[in-house]
Amino acid sequence: MNNQQNPKAIIVIFGATGDLAKRKLFPSIYRLYQNGKIDDDFAVIGLARRPWTNEILRDNVEQSIKETNASKSDVDKFTSHFYYQSFDVTEASSYQGLNDLMQELEGMYNTNGNRIFYLAMAPEFFGTIAVNLKDYCLEMSSGWSRLVIEKPFGHDLPSARALNSQIREAFDEDQIYRIDHYLGKEMVQNIEVIRFANGIFEHLWNNRFISNIQITSSESLGVEERARYYDHSGATRDMVQNHMLQMVALLAMEPPIKLTTDEIRSEKIKVLRALRPIDDSEVDENFVRGQYGSGHLHGKDVQSYRGETDELKDSHTETYVAGKVMIDNYRWAGVPFYIRTGKRMAEKSTNIVVEFKDIPMNLYSEDDGNKNPNLLVINIQPNEGITLFLNAKKAGHGSAAQPIQLSYNNNGVHGINTPEAYEKLLYDCMLGDATNFTHWDEVAFSWAYIDAILNAWSRRTPDFPNYTSGSMGPKEADDLLAKDGFHWWPIRDVVQ
Amino acid sequence: MNNQQNPKAIIVIFGATGDLAKRKLFPSIYRLYQNGKIDDDFAVIGLARRPWTNEILRDNVEQSIKETNASKSDVDKFTSHFYYQSFDVTEASSYQGLNDLMQELEGMYNTNGNRIFYLAMAPEFFGTIAVNLKDYCLEMSSGWSRLVIEKPFGHDLPSARALNSQIREAFDEDQIYRIDHYLGKEMVQNIEVIRFANGIFEHLWNNRFISNIQITSSESLGVEERARYYDHSGATRDMVQNHMLQMVALLAMEPPIKLTTDEIRSEKIKVLRALRPIDDSEVDENFVRGQYGSGHLHGKDVQSYRGETDELKDSHTETYVAGKVMIDNYRWAGVPFYIRTGKRMAEKSTNIVVEFKDIPMNLYSEDDGNKNPNLLVINIQPNEGITLFLNAKKAGHGSAAQPIQLSYNNNGVHGINTPEAYEKLLYDCMLGDATNFTHWDEVAFSWAYIDAILNAWSRRTPDFPNYTSGSMGPKEADDLLAKDGFHWWPIRDVVQ
Repeated sequence: MNNQQNPKAIIVIFGATGDLAKRKLFPSIYRLYQNGKIDDDFAVIGLARRPWTNEILRDNVEQSIKETNASKSDVDKFTSHFYYQSFDVTEASSYQGLNDLMQELEGMYNTNGNRIFYLAMAPEFFGTIAVNLKDYCLEMSSGWSRLVIEKPFGHDLPSARALNSQIREAFDEDQIYRIDHYLGKEMVQNIEVIRFANGIFEHLWNNRFISNIQITSSESLGVEERARYYDHSGATRDMVQNHMLQMVALLAMEPPIKLTTDEIRSEKIKVLRALRPIDDSEVDENFVRGQYGSGHLHGKDVQSYRGETDELKDSHTETYVAGKVMIDNYRWAGVPFYIRTGKRMAEKSTNIVVEFKDIPMNLYSEDDGNKNPNLLVINIQPNEGITLFLNAKKAGHGSAAQPIQLSYNNNGVHGINTPEAYEKLLYDCMLGDATNFTHWDEVAFSWAYIDAILNAWSRRTPDFPNYTSGSMGPKEADDLLAKDGFHWWPIRDVVQ
Repeated sequence: MNNQQNPKAIIVIFGATGDLAKRKLFPSIYRLYQNGKIDDDFAVIGLARRPWTNEILRDNVEQSIKETNASKSDVDKFTSHFYYQSFDVTEASSYQGLNDLMQELEGMYNTNGNRIFYLAMAPEFFGTIAVNLKDYCLEMSSGWSRLVIEKPFGHDLPSARALNSQIREAFDEDQIYRIDHYLGKEMVQNIEVIRFANGIFEHLWNNRFISNIQITSSESLGVEERARYYDHSGATRDMVQNHMLQMVALLAMEPPIKLTTDEIRSEKIKVLRALRPIDDSEVDENFVRGQYGSGHLHGKDVQSYRGETDELKDSHTETYVAGKVMIDNYRWAGVPFYIRTGKRMAEKSTNIVVEFKDIPMNLYSEDDGNKNPNLLVINIQPNEGITLFLNAKKAGHGSAAQPIQLSYNNNGVHGINTPEAYEKLLYDCMLGDATNFTHWDEVAFSWAYIDAILNAWSRRTPDFPNYTSGSMGPKEADDLLAKDGFHWWPIRDVVQ
């Protein structure tokens, strides 16, 4: 990891008129600037089709940071670093123009020829852009060049492989920063520290003491305006191939030799290599897909997925997936990692529940049902914190046991919001720290795992809709755990 | 354990005009009555020298429960169960009178001949009373008879043995309820549940994972009106022989076969038998005594122990003791149990800190000093709760670790005060559950351990005073841990 505190670079944003740029990238760059992480040696070039000007872009940037209470002159000083170029990703002249502008700005700002190309746009052009960048924009640079690429990285293993080949023509693997914004989340990053900085967990973190791990990422929203993209993707591609399997890898990886990018990635890759492949005939036993019907949520009636827009009316896309992931290695043999994610679920929450094996003999059998196994809950969002569920004496006479919670609330302690994922990831990229980005091998092993499931599903028409909006998913997702003797820990109980 | 919910008995209190009766026993009986744990089938006979009447006793009982907001008629109904007899513990006629009164009340109340004799008075008469009870009061009873006996149980092993022989002439071991009120405290009782109802601690609770255990019971008060008793006793007899070693036994005992009185006591006794005896020449290496000098506490100047009253002016009595207790068994070999207790210390607090061994390799060495070993803190008083100190990621960029606390506050959750120790112990005695009382063998092994230390000390004049009021004790108490590579965890840090 590069410890340079004030990295210098030109940041080129492909898709500067889009939602991601406005909601995440501009505010992140602003906070880095405001917090002194970057100083005045930077420029941002916004690219998109629309015929905007520097002024329009700067107005948009100003809009996107308007909730901060900076003075007008500070904001103007900040937005003066932003430049716009109307851009056609298929046109050579656009790249030539970009190259000229970069060189001009490198003369104005002290950026040492360092360049970040941030692809915040429709994935179909990722390959084209990479190839054109190689031809027109990379040769002349005296500094480093890095490519930041948003999900989805392919649509399955073959398409991801094709995309990767195109990109690799222009960029080396260590220049490519594949964004998985979950890896920028404070509590996802905390998984590693919780595991490797605590003596007590070091000993407990294996199949002798853990009975199962449950990872939930539930949304209460429906597809909203992302219908077209989402219907083409579905919950498995949108959430499992990347975010959910990344969390599995972080939870399951062996302690790395050092906390370096290569060592951590290599341990994560080992986990993904150890995922037990799911044979076609075993998919239904291990994975459950769902699509929401209409229902009632937060006091409102909501419509079914198929009812959201006309183009979804015959959709077979899954808006929910639950699965049992097995890791065939010494540490995890026999421990199911249950994952579930979906839309229109009862609560919005991302959390991890590590369920420990119970005591070897229950001395408190009179109190059956009042005692739980020990649970370590990592709350990722919207709350950030750690809760340990123990059993303690019920107050009063007698020695009955009851579950208690020991809680740590990340927000509460610091009083300030922790940095947003994009802010941290962008800064990591500027510093050249790729630890919290996904290596190609991770992408490839994840797709290989997921493709088997998607392929099996594609051959059978699902009986959708099969869960009510506002529920926690189809009944089959409960059965998945029940047949192993477990149950999903209710979100309401484990998240406060 | 007898599960009879409304025990019936006559409670005979020796020392009914004293402080303990007024502050603890009357209010405890009242709360048991109020909470329906005992119903109207009980009577209390108060005994003492003074020429009180039933009415004076009842007025006193009423005074002692006056903070409750019961109606006058409820209080009158309750106090009508109280009877007073003027009593000389050396006079046969007193016992004959007591026997007559008991028989009379057994006719009035439906107590089935059950009798509790509660010795809440000066210990020099415990033996005399027991012998006389045998001669005059026990023969005629058709129910059970139990003897409750307050500390101190002897002054050393020989005197305790002599006292026990006298008592045993009248009562069998299973009729004797030796009070250690720490065993009635909610969080002391919780030690067992925390240990044996939590899968994760089961595996960690031994010398492979615990580096040391620290037990602190600190007072900020001086000796106050107890000067005469205290100067004869000292901190070691007053606190270590009973309360501190009982906590050591609960923390260190093997899991019992069942949670029965006999099984639990037998495991506790095994711990006390395994205490490494301290040879005369090793006392100074392992135990530190202290006496407070003047100082400053809670904003006031306070005087030295020797300055408190004229009779203390040459005292060599220790008001502080710290020690390193080793348990020579498979589970605990090599793990020091550090204990400390004293008066006029900086804070009033009783707590246990279980310090776990650190991670096998520090991946976070850049952050040295910011990371602590894991600590499990059991707060016994005045706060009741459990805190686990872990390390987690410091919010923001990078992966530095920092200590965090996961807390459970017993008071906070229940909203009501947990039952007072005496209330629970009196009820246990009425139910015939002796688990939370000390067996003779526990008393004997504790005295044997303590006597070696006291004997060594008695042969050397201490250099008192040696700690300032308002400090945490003499410097030697810090050295005790420092030479093992540990330090006392500051109360302020571990108790909130």
